[in-house]
Amino acid sequence: MAVVVTEIERADAAVAAALGQYGVATVHEAQGRTGLMGAYMRPIYRPAQISGTAITCEVAPGDNWMIHVAAEQCQLGDILVVTPTSPCDDGYFGDLLATSLQARGVKGLIINAGVRDIAVLTEMKFPVWSKVVYAQGTVKETIANVNVPVVCAGAHVVPGDVIVADDDGVVVVPRAKAAAVLENAAAREANEGAKRDQLAAGVLGLDLYKMRERLAAKGLRYARRLD
Amino acid sequence: MAVVVTEIERADAAVAAALGQYGVATVHEAQGRTGLMGAYMRPIYRPAQISGTAITCEVAPGDNWMIHVAAEQCQLGDILVVTPTSPCDDGYFGDLLATSLQARGVKGLIINAGVRDIAVLTEMKFPVWSKVVYAQGTVKETIANVNVPVVCAGAHVVPGDVIVADDDGVVVVPRAKAAAVLENAAAREANEGAKRDQLAAGVLGLDLYKMRERLAAKGLRYARRLD
Amino acid sequence: MAVVVTEIERADAAVAAALGQYGVATVHEAQGRTGLMGAYMRPIYRPAQISGTAITCEVAPGDNWMIHVAAEQCQLGDILVVTPTSPCDDGYFGDLLATSLQARGVKGLIINAGVRDIAVLTEMKFPVWSKVVYAQGTVKETIANVNVPVVCAGAHVVPGDVIVADDDGVVVVPRAKAAAVLENAAAREANEGAKRDQLAAGVLGLDLYKMRERLAAKGLRYARRLD
Amino acid sequence: MAVVVTEIERADAAVAAALGQYGVATVHEAQGRTGLMGAYMRPIYRPAQISGTAITCEVAPGDNWMIHVAAEQCQLGDILVVTPTSPCDDGYFGDLLATSLQARGVKGLIINAGVRDIAVLTEMKFPVWSKVVYAQGTVKETIANVNVPVVCAGAHVVPGDVIVADDDGVVVVPRAKAAAVLENAAAREANEGAKRDQLAAGVLGLDLYKMRERLAAKGLRYARRLD
Amino acid sequence: MAVVVTEIERADAAVAAALGQYGVATVHEAQGRTGLMGAYMRPIYRPAQISGTAITCEVAPGDNWMIHVAAEQCQLGDILVVTPTSPCDDGYFGDLLATSLQARGVKGLIINAGVRDIAVLTEMKFPVWSKVVYAQGTVKETIANVNVPVVCAGAHVVPGDVIVADDDGVVVVPRAKAAAVLENAAAREANEGAKRDQLAAGVLGLDLYKMRERLAAKGLRYARRLD
Amino acid sequence: MAVVVTEIERADAAVAAALGQYGVATVHEAQGRTGLMGAYMRPIYRPAQISGTAITCEVAPGDNWMIHVAAEQCQLGDILVVTPTSPCDDGYFGDLLATSLQARGVKGLIINAGVRDIAVLTEMKFPVWSKVVYAQGTVKETIANVNVPVVCAGAHVVPGDVIVADDDGVVVVPRAKAAAVLENAAAREANEGAKRDQLAAGVLGLDLYKMRERLAAKGLRYARRLD
Repeated sequence: MAVVVTEIERADAAVAAALGQYGVATVHEAQGRTGLMGAYMRPIYRPAQISGTAITCEVAPGDNWMIHVAAEQCQLGDILVVTPTSPCDDGYFGDLLATSLQARGVKGLIINAGVRDIAVLTEMKFPVWSKVVYAQGTVKETIANVNVPVVCAGAHVVPGDVIVADDDGVVVVPRAKAAAVLENAAAREANEGAKRDQLAAGVLGLDLYKMRERLAAKGLRYARRLD
Repeated sequence: MAVVVTEIERADAAVAAALGQYGVATVHEAQGRTGLMGAYMRPIYRPAQISGTAITCEVAPGDNWMIHVAAEQCQLGDILVVTPTSPCDDGYFGDLLATSLQARGVKGLIINAGVRDIAVLTEMKFPVWSKVVYAQGTVKETIANVNVPVVCAGAHVVPGDVIVADDDGVVVVPRAKAAAVLENAAAREANEGAKRDQLAAGVLGLDLYKMRERLAAKGLRYARRLD
Repeated sequence: MAVVVTEIERADAAVAAALGQYGVATVHEAQGRTGLMGAYMRPIYRPAQISGTAITCEVAPGDNWMIHVAAEQCQLGDILVVTPTSPCDDGYFGDLLATSLQARGVKGLIINAGVRDIAVLTEMKFPVWSKVVYAQGTVKETIANVNVPVVCAGAHVVPGDVIVADDDGVVVVPRAKAAAVLENAAAREANEGAKRDQLAAGVLGLDLYKMRERLAAKGLRYARRLD
Repeated sequence: MAVVVTEIERADAAVAAALGQYGVATVHEAQGRTGLMGAYMRPIYRPAQISGTAITCEVAPGDNWMIHVAAEQCQLGDILVVTPTSPCDDGYFGDLLATSLQARGVKGLIINAGVRDIAVLTEMKFPVWSKVVYAQGTVKETIANVNVPVVCAGAHVVPGDVIVADDDGVVVVPRAKAAAVLENAAAREANEGAKRDQLAAGVLGLDLYKMRERLAAKGLRYARRLD
Repeated sequence: MAVVVTEIERADAAVAAALGQYGVATVHEAQGRTGLMGAYMRPIYRPAQISGTAITCEVAPGDNWMIHVAAEQCQLGDILVVTPTSPCDDGYFGDLLATSLQARGVKGLIINAGVRDIAVLTEMKFPVWSKVVYAQGTVKETIANVNVPVVCAGAHVVPGDVIVADDDGVVVVPRAKAAAVLENAAAREANEGAKRDQLAAGVLGLDLYKMRERLAAKGLRYARRLD
Repeated sequence: MAVVVTEIERADAAVAAALGQYGVATVHEAQGRTGLMGAYMRPIYRPAQISGTAITCEVAPGDNWMIHVAAEQCQLGDILVVTPTSPCDDGYFGDLLATSLQARGVKGLIINAGVRDIAVLTEMKFPVWSKVVYAQGTVKETIANVNVPVVCAGAHVVPGDVIVADDDGVVVVPRAKAAAVLENAAAREANEGAKRDQLAAGVLGLDLYKMRERLAAKGLRYARRLD
């Protein structure tokens, strides 16, 4: 009743890596504000910033068996994306699994559930974005799918998509759009540099972005005192 | 339908600055336990401690336009207080706006909504107390009021009031009471120093505060074993 | 109507101390996955790791009086466990109480409510696991029990039980089981070392734990493409 | 340290009563989308719809003493607004207090905390909007203010303001604006009647509100298939 | 590793039944405000009021197997108390299990997790107090204990204890105290009848409970206007 | 930047209607426990049960403009599925929009945000499943997509998919699987009828499902007393 898909089309590795130099906020803007996971997905330590290609892994509530199965599908440059088939806060993942993934070149873990051993994971510099930190362990009784499309923390993830994660959260870039999003992100960032300089020099956003006229047209008025 | 009030009465700058040396907990006690924002308002990095005079800024949900308008009203020593007109977790504020506010001498941001670019904000040492960290961006379509009284995270803030924020949270001190609260806070702190020494020397609070008699009067009894 | 029990049976001090070298996750596993407090109990700073014997303290909502009473019952190597008789987020505990407890050799505080002065507590290196950080103070009007069995954050705590707390959370080890749990934890840890080496060398969990046959028996199948 | 204000200026009773015939949503719109309490304030039974003038009552966490004090200040047509000085879910209010308030002609209770005896309150037809239902009782140890301005569930309430509450939640209308808001609300409602008839007859909002041109100007396009 | 205890000492059936005529709030007061489950435990329909003796059932997250095992241990007049060994919102219980329990004379279900088929359960008049309503099903893979002491929604439950549940929530009465609590509850209720009459007649609680002097001693003052 | 897709492939109307006679829990089981929306999606009144084909509508936070656009795309038998592009609790939908949709034969609304006018919606018998009830209104400034695939409350919805909603929540059935799921659901239901009769007659699930042997194999043991 469950399947492991063994051949997936990954986004270009160079593109996936390059997206990582831009923050989640920039990448999210660069693809039209789509693909963001819920704000509750937080890194276990800060700062942390990774990008890579998604291996997806469903798990039953309270059961981390399939993470072992998914590990075999991971390659250098991948990011493992784990989501339970119903909401669960258990600590599915700890330092042993992290050791195994790190040995395979996995960049980090995105898990819509709990993680544990975070002191060791922090020392190992294996970054995890999770819903919660919780020491409660799991069993190995129930199978589920690996490398099928999933919804993780409100975002649709297809295996091979690019994941970008940093202190702001996690965003998914569909494989087919990755190169275009990279281009947009680079353009945004270049554009922001000049703006940052002007703002640092004291120019107001009101003037830099020429907002005054449109604000007035919307009806904004200035008064010395509140009536 | 929206107004920007351009002349506000700020609390005395020296008083506002001096309040910052006491913690939020002390200031809160010193004004009779009023003015505290909700516990969900957390700093994006720790330790962080600021005080200053409030510029207030309403924003529409998902719309950060008015923060640009409010920036123009900010002066050296101000703290910007932003609150959406209905609950919203979007990332209203990032490193470009922080650059602009920092250039104007603003001490930090209090926002009852989301913030993003927190890795950069941390490097910039621009402190923010927010409801959430979230990369989701906002639009610029809807106007709202600047420098009118607002409720932010459950606290009433009048423009010009003093804001004190640290690792414990955020408290608002009404302008008219600021000097008196400062005096109380200083007295409390002086008083605490002596107590701390005694407690560190092993004196029990039971004795230091002479609680034993009143506890007995309330009916507290001691037993070697639970019956 | 309230009682302070003055003679409790503490778990063996050496056992309590030794349990602290294992993480919460390991100890939790070693006692059959019982005794874990809710995931919302988080340390105020990281890393932090303590173990010790429990002194229990009930408090009324918004009233920290009994913490002063409980302090007198604390000895070197104890951990104070505070739980309100109804849910409350107030900041029951700050740097003065921490000074007093630290002077008595208390290892740290577990409180199913709020804590304040966390910047100072962090500097003092007095670790606290709490539900929330909140500057709101409390009164001293209502008495409650000290050193009676309590439920704290979903875990049953009897005075004298062992508490182990680290970055993953808080777990309670019943006094009578402490020695056996220590033995189990040590065995688990020894066992994990060898596994960690193999996983670091690239051996898959699938092979290390001989999972492949059982997965196949459950019906897991591999496919190159999703049908 | 606490005061009971005995003479407050109530909004006109006829205006307060008349506002009750419009829903909370309409009144909220009619005053420029201000004064709404948080969405977590829910009625204990449905349908329920009241309006009246506010008596405000602060309470300490876990302490309902001041509700008895506030009861004396209530008159026919008032609504009691209770808010704890720090967050608390205890059941401050039950059938005995409701009996007392009902005897004085109080229309209902708004409480940013817990309520209990809701089966009896439902039978008595005494409506309550609360944060939570919880049987946990309270003590009578700490005094607080009655009839001072408060923040309740995120809304600023001055004694004498109009409260309107229904199945959608609770809104506060400042006394000075009550007559104007009533007028606006009536105008909105009249306007809505005609619109409702057209919509019921199948006219689209797109046409009724003439939205098509502005949507096109914003860049909305229609396509038979997704590219 | 898991056990089903087959012989438990139940509280006296007549006492358990009699406690049901008093509300949860009254029973909770009558036993010194202990034993209350968290406020998030809500009935699936209202009004609902039951009492009976507890059968306890641990379940693994996402696994309802043990409810079938526990069913066999249930007798006429029992209430089944189910709690997962780690937090889980899945729908463990539906109309088939309810049919089975109802056939055995079980009064209702208390579950610190999810329930489903609530439309049918409502029609069947089988009351359930749960953490959440959720259609997500469970598996039958993992065993756990039946009729051992558990913590459910923050309350300690020993098999055979009395459970009282109504629209206000759920309270646990220890078996050994049940008769005394019943007596207290009856006394409280008798006492409340007279008070209710007086309050309904317009007597203020301030006078009925003779509070005025103590309030003045605490420092409460009355003023016509706020200074 | 936003598109309205005008021609979608709807699931067969008869199949969509027929699925409605089975509960959400049954349909969810019948398609392998996929497609369920989060448990926080609750009906505004109970009982309520609908099924139909999905029209999807993205909305900006605090902006309900696109619901008017989506209304035009709705036909007899459709269900409107609305999801904000970032989390928002505003009251996007009220009685005027419901009047319009009801006039077009729409069965109900699924909205991952707030709804208002629920007293009127209840009278109109227009069912809504929402995240929250909130009177806060919205603006009409920002465009978004209609009839593109969306994630709503954690479930992936493609326009034309079948939506089934009842007191237990909301489930999405992909168009291509609808007929097969209907068949499975019918088979399950038929099967359940016989089981229900046996359980009602007192047969235990342990025997009906022949669980005893497998439980023993897992290590479950029975004991008269807890050791």
